[in-house]
Amino acid sequence: MTPTRYTIPARRGKAARLNAGEAIRIINTHGAQVVDTWAFSADDMTEFMSMEHIRPTLGRIFPRSGDALVTNRRRPILHLEKDTSPGRHDTLIAACDDYRYGLLGCTEYHDNCTDNLHAALRQLGLTAPECPSPLNLWMNIPVDGAGNTAWGEPLSKPGDYVVLRAAMDCVVAMSACPQDILPINGASLAPTEAHFEIIGRG
Amino acid sequence: MTPTRYTIPARRGKAARLNAGEAIRIINTHGAQVVDTWAFSADDMTEFMSMEHIRPTLGRIFPRSGDALVTNRRRPILHLEKDTSPGRHDTLIAACDDYRYGLLGCTEYHDNCTDNLHAALRQLGLTAPECPSPLNLWMNIPVDGAGNTAWGEPLSKPGDYVVLRAAMDCVVAMSACPQDILPINGASLAPTEAHFEIIGRG
Repeated sequence: MTPTRYTIPARRGKAARLNAGEAIRIINTHGAQVVDTWAFSADDMTEFMSMEHIRPTLGRIFPRSGDALVTNRRRPILHLEKDTSPGRHDTLIAACDDYRYGLLGCTEYHDNCTDNLHAALRQLGLTAPECPSPLNLWMNIPVDGAGNTAWGEPLSKPGDYVVLRAAMDCVVAMSACPQDILPINGASLAPTEAHFEIIGRG
Repeated sequence: MTPTRYTIPARRGKAARLNAGEAIRIINTHGAQVVDTWAFSADDMTEFMSMEHIRPTLGRIFPRSGDALVTNRRRPILHLEKDTSPGRHDTLIAACDDYRYGLLGCTEYHDNCTDNLHAALRQLGLTAPECPSPLNLWMNIPVDGAGNTAWGEPLSKPGDYVVLRAAMDCVVAMSACPQDILPINGASLAPTEAHFEIIGRG
């Protein structure tokens, strides 16, 4: 049976529940869209996927296929089971927010991943205690030996996807990042939609 | 007038209030001690110094003299005014916690920076909403071009210090990291005390 394909609209967020053993396939439909991704324990929203706990667990700042992605209690919540892209995903950069766009010169409200996270969870009747630092799928932030970062363009191509399998009952939230000032969603500065599917136990 | 020198006991935490314009001098007395450091707004403990917001603001993973250190609302809370050490401080690694030491093989409770943060704040009658990712002073976590991290030894020498000047009324908490399994506090695996002083407006 072909799984239902859900849309993450451009500049917006979406969340989905996963039972342990189920997986989510997140698809970079148009190839250059960053998708900020979070995961919260279904039993306790204060336990969530945590970048600062993932980095020391992996000994790397870039996760790759086969990696366990841990929570702030250092327990696996998702496994990065498959990745068809070159595997450049960011763990360093906070979700964008209204403060960020203000500093980038916006004088009016700008769509942002932090508000998208909270709105997506509210659609499921859930409240996050905070906006954890996200796993920024396809966001290309190279770091040189001196520790300098850069705002790269995604290395992915249309249709690239990752499969994240749930190690515990959890809620995954995603935001099709509305960043249109820096080139993180490609040089065209045009945020697009992305898609996801829920896949049963493997 | 010589400022009072306060002790951060080995394996323990300590916190201090700073008015805007005052500074704290944190001293690596014995030269190889990592000091996990946090800062919270005095007006609202949910606003705190945030590594994932500092990195994109600086465009670097290593802060250095002259840098503004921002909060999760992207406002400067501290300025790194002076640093006598080679400037290798970590922004990537979560505070150690009891879960961490369990994964490192400890079967009994192990002193840890997360509990030290909460205990230090409780001494001032304060409660943190969470344990933010700390600024790990003198913790030497090199990152290579492929994104691999390593557990380096501090590059600092006895008496090295940093001066952090408050950009807003705030509370600074510090933990003399009790890590004695990985060599982040030096090859001797012997955590030591550190010290701090409060310096008036410059």
